[in-house]
Amino acid sequence: MAELTSEQREVEESLVYRVVASFGETPDPRLRQLMQTLVRHLHGFIRDVRLTEQEWDAAIKFLTDCGDITDERRQEFILLSDVLGASMQTIAVNNEAHANTTEATVFGPFFVDDAPHIPIGGDIAAGAAGEPCWVEGTVTDISGNPVAGARIDVWEADADGYYDVQYPDGRVAGRGYLFSDEHGAYRFWCLTPVPYPVPHDGPVGALLAAVQRSPMRAAHLHVMVTAEGLRTLVTHIFVAGDEYIDRDAVFGVKDSLIKEFDRRPPGVPTPDGRDLGDLPWSSVRLGIVLAPAPPHEDR
Amino acid sequence: MAELTSEQREVEESLVYRVVASFGETPDPRLRQLMQTLVRHLHGFIRDVRLTEQEWDAAIKFLTDCGDITDERRQEFILLSDVLGASMQTIAVNNEAHANTTEATVFGPFFVDDAPHIPIGGDIAAGAAGEPCWVEGTVTDISGNPVAGARIDVWEADADGYYDVQYPDGRVAGRGYLFSDEHGAYRFWCLTPVPYPVPHDGPVGALLAAVQRSPMRAAHLHVMVTAEGLRTLVTHIFVAGDEYIDRDAVFGVKDSLIKEFDRRPPGVPTPDGRDLGDLPWSSVRLGIVLAPAPPHEDR
Repeated sequence: MAELTSEQREVEESLVYRVVASFGETPDPRLRQLMQTLVRHLHGFIRDVRLTEQEWDAAIKFLTDCGDITDERRQEFILLSDVLGASMQTIAVNNEAHANTTEATVFGPFFVDDAPHIPIGGDIAAGAAGEPCWVEGTVTDISGNPVAGARIDVWEADADGYYDVQYPDGRVAGRGYLFSDEHGAYRFWCLTPVPYPVPHDGPVGALLAAVQRSPMRAAHLHVMVTAEGLRTLVTHIFVAGDEYIDRDAVFGVKDSLIKEFDRRPPGVPTPDGRDLGDLPWSSVRLGIVLAPAPPHEDR
Repeated sequence: MAELTSEQREVEESLVYRVVASFGETPDPRLRQLMQTLVRHLHGFIRDVRLTEQEWDAAIKFLTDCGDITDERRQEFILLSDVLGASMQTIAVNNEAHANTTEATVFGPFFVDDAPHIPIGGDIAAGAAGEPCWVEGTVTDISGNPVAGARIDVWEADADGYYDVQYPDGRVAGRGYLFSDEHGAYRFWCLTPVPYPVPHDGPVGALLAAVQRSPMRAAHLHVMVTAEGLRTLVTHIFVAGDEYIDRDAVFGVKDSLIKEFDRRPPGVPTPDGRDLGDLPWSSVRLGIVLAPAPPHEDR
């Protein structure tokens, strides 16, 4: 911070004090804590950078533009949180590393709660374009006990980098859910993930361009696993060797989530005997280890 | 912050480091500084309060709701900045107290750049309901030299607490601009300011209710003064004795801006001989002292 006169420092600090105090009568102690801490950091930011009035104008316009582009199918505020690493930091503080459990990562804006149920061994691609990919593994708890009946939600972009909610025709493809069997095992077909850009035709995309950051996400498959009495896992599988693995636009990559995808040329027999004709395909194994549920888990 | 394991602390701090580093190639050094400092404070907030995923969801919904209610005539993001004291802190860091100059305060969301020009002694009320108020004074620089031709913009709410931009019929009232005369003097009619609530039917209003803060602003008249070679002044005049003077919803009150409004019963002759019939009226004096323009002033 620039050198301030004691008079100026007093003006600024007394304002912070008054704003913090204005939240002092908040009945909910957690909301009081949230607001008072937010005020301290927000004012700290303004004072640290000596924010100009033109920059404040630009910030208001930026938020307004984010609001303008947001609708049921486009969520610019989540995207903003993602590219600032705020989503990932929230994941980090809520999913403390727990023994050998599978690590969590960002949820992302593309999950939709009406995916189709598929049988074990089924295909979530549902016609979406891309290279077939066989995923299999077992869901266990931290003691290695199999978890039967765990719900496994999977969603991903197609070979062109689009999720089905971005299709203009409302088609459902590239997502679904299945349940682990009595041995905790699961297996399904999907598409080999490919890198794609986050939506970058809006204000967040303009910001990324201004700071010379790529909008590309490292190739990934979204996985969410829920099972009674265990902590819900929201994560991705990343593809080893992917070009964007070290500069994912939303900071979602964790080393433990990078998996080797075995690439097979056309004609190699598939695990379930499915005939893929002249398509190449891939396969990956993902063991999922769920943590115990924290007290009062309600997600 | 809760006691963290060193492993967890490392996870969180390395994420902050990576996000800050991602802005390292920003060509504009000021934008780089803004973004990196923003990231540090944003992550500091999330880590300090151990933000839950439900609270993150609520924050995204809050911003989305602010976007939904914002349009050309309603600016919820400015209102949010105002009630968090962020607008006032921005004013504070940009308008360092300078000798005997008139202090600045918040701009507010109600200024519109198409107000009518009125002659010296004219009435900006233009039919808006309220008690007539006579304002007079002189514009000077810090050496006491009169400033001729200073543009004085004035805007205010009517007796019901509404600015004209909030009228459904598009009428222009309660705002205008005039110029100081060759002696730096000015005088005009307006309305005696009354307290009014900030718009509180949206998400910011719901926040104020949840934290048990009043949405009322202390009664005030907006004044903006621009003159060549001098720092533009954006300020208010507040009314001494006003009920909300100590708990203005946007933290705009400064002691030096509180003025005595002399209240006159009906029939007392007015300074300019205007016949107000059976209306009471008030008067106030406001000497305006402008600071020298900072280098590169461009507002």
